[in-house]
Amino acid sequence: MANSGSGDSMTDRVVRVLETFTPSRSVQTAAQIGRRAGLPPSTAHRLVGELVESGLLERDDDRRIRMGVRLWELATRSSHTLRLREAALPSMGRVQARIGEHTQLAVLEQDEALLLERLSDPDAGSNVIRVAGRLPLHASSSGLVLLAFGDRDVRERILAGPLARTSAETITDPAALRRKLAEVRSLGHAVAPGSIEAVSTGVAVPVRDETGEVVAALSVVLPRRAAVDPALVELRVAARDISRALGHRR
Amino acid sequence: MANSGSGDSMTDRVVRVLETFTPSRSVQTAAQIGRRAGLPPSTAHRLVGELVESGLLERDDDRRIRMGVRLWELATRSSHTLRLREAALPSMGRVQARIGEHTQLAVLEQDEALLLERLSDPDAGSNVIRVAGRLPLHASSSGLVLLAFGDRDVRERILAGPLARTSAETITDPAALRRKLAEVRSLGHAVAPGSIEAVSTGVAVPVRDETGEVVAALSVVLPRRAAVDPALVELRVAARDISRALGHRR
Repeated sequence: MANSGSGDSMTDRVVRVLETFTPSRSVQTAAQIGRRAGLPPSTAHRLVGELVESGLLERDDDRRIRMGVRLWELATRSSHTLRLREAALPSMGRVQARIGEHTQLAVLEQDEALLLERLSDPDAGSNVIRVAGRLPLHASSSGLVLLAFGDRDVRERILAGPLARTSAETITDPAALRRKLAEVRSLGHAVAPGSIEAVSTGVAVPVRDETGEVVAALSVVLPRRAAVDPALVELRVAARDISRALGHRR
Repeated sequence: MANSGSGDSMTDRVVRVLETFTPSRSVQTAAQIGRRAGLPPSTAHRLVGELVESGLLERDDDRRIRMGVRLWELATRSSHTLRLREAALPSMGRVQARIGEHTQLAVLEQDEALLLERLSDPDAGSNVIRVAGRLPLHASSSGLVLLAFGDRDVRERILAGPLARTSAETITDPAALRRKLAEVRSLGHAVAPGSIEAVSTGVAVPVRDETGEVVAALSVVLPRRAAVDPALVELRVAARDISRALGHRR
């Protein structure tokens, strides 16, 4: 029942359909979804129909399909990341108000840094990353913090490469990355100039839960020539407050 | 392929599994999920296994199941509500900082008010509702705004009742609700004392998009005896700024 003739489960097909939706492709026709998910047209139409029926997808007046608010609701209301976001938001708001630049919260997910939240002023500078976007661990200040303070297994897997170059300043040499991570652990923060975009510098600090484990990275994206220290002071205060809200006691 | 012997589609079953997760039941065993979703044990185990395999659910070290961060990512990254949240967050942060109470953004979803975002101080007062939680339209300040300025069809359907009583002060008489909604339209805001909890008063204002349509309600939850006017001033400024960020031009 769960398996189609070609060996992939119905669940796989649902996931493949959901994966065709991206920030730049938030509205699609059923035919486009089928093509992008690699499904036969009849299968795609039936599956999209079922997903619309259940509310996981929505069909607009032009019969185009978009992600359902119902799916967001189900995915969010019992998510274990919700507590982290809710603990972090007031402090993130203060950092954003004082520094005036993008303020971000990221967690480690499948060997990448997943952006759980971002606060921005409408007139803040360039930033390519959105909420629910991902950053490479070795090439972002958030990623460097998650990598430096995270599981040894993940760290060794990433150090084993390949370390993709995302800009002229990306650290792609494993030995240099190992030295950088030791520096991040020693300083208690990561500064990554130009690692995502040449015009900006990421600054990140660790957030801990009640067990003392680093569960997230709090960061700001500064214009390249801005002073790092004032942002670092705000970030440290905020990370301490968020960690306390999560039950961390020192 | 898509249908089981009992006539419900696989998609229905996936949705029923996801629906067993709630804020108070964020971690379950596969057996509990099966029982709550009304699925035979063997079906439940196979389906949960597939969902874990795909990353939509996660299994922890104790083999208990929780919602996958991957599902949140897929549901969020291409959601049309993300633009609304991102446009609203900076203004919500300012309201929260100035008023110091829960600040909320809600949209109309399936005849209820769905909470897209909430900003709170850790020491803010009581509030029963969480992000991705729902409020009845007739019994919350957000709901009254969405109902007053929303589709006539939705309004007439809700007015046709039943109007469930959620507190001693809930408006349960259709004629009284109709008068209240006319008042909300005329004043441009809704005040709902004690409608959710006796100790608090909700105050909400409409947020408009570029077409002028009301797409969300911005609200604060005040302690019952707090003055409403200062909050209303902040809310109106914030709603104007958010509406402008969404392209509204007057």
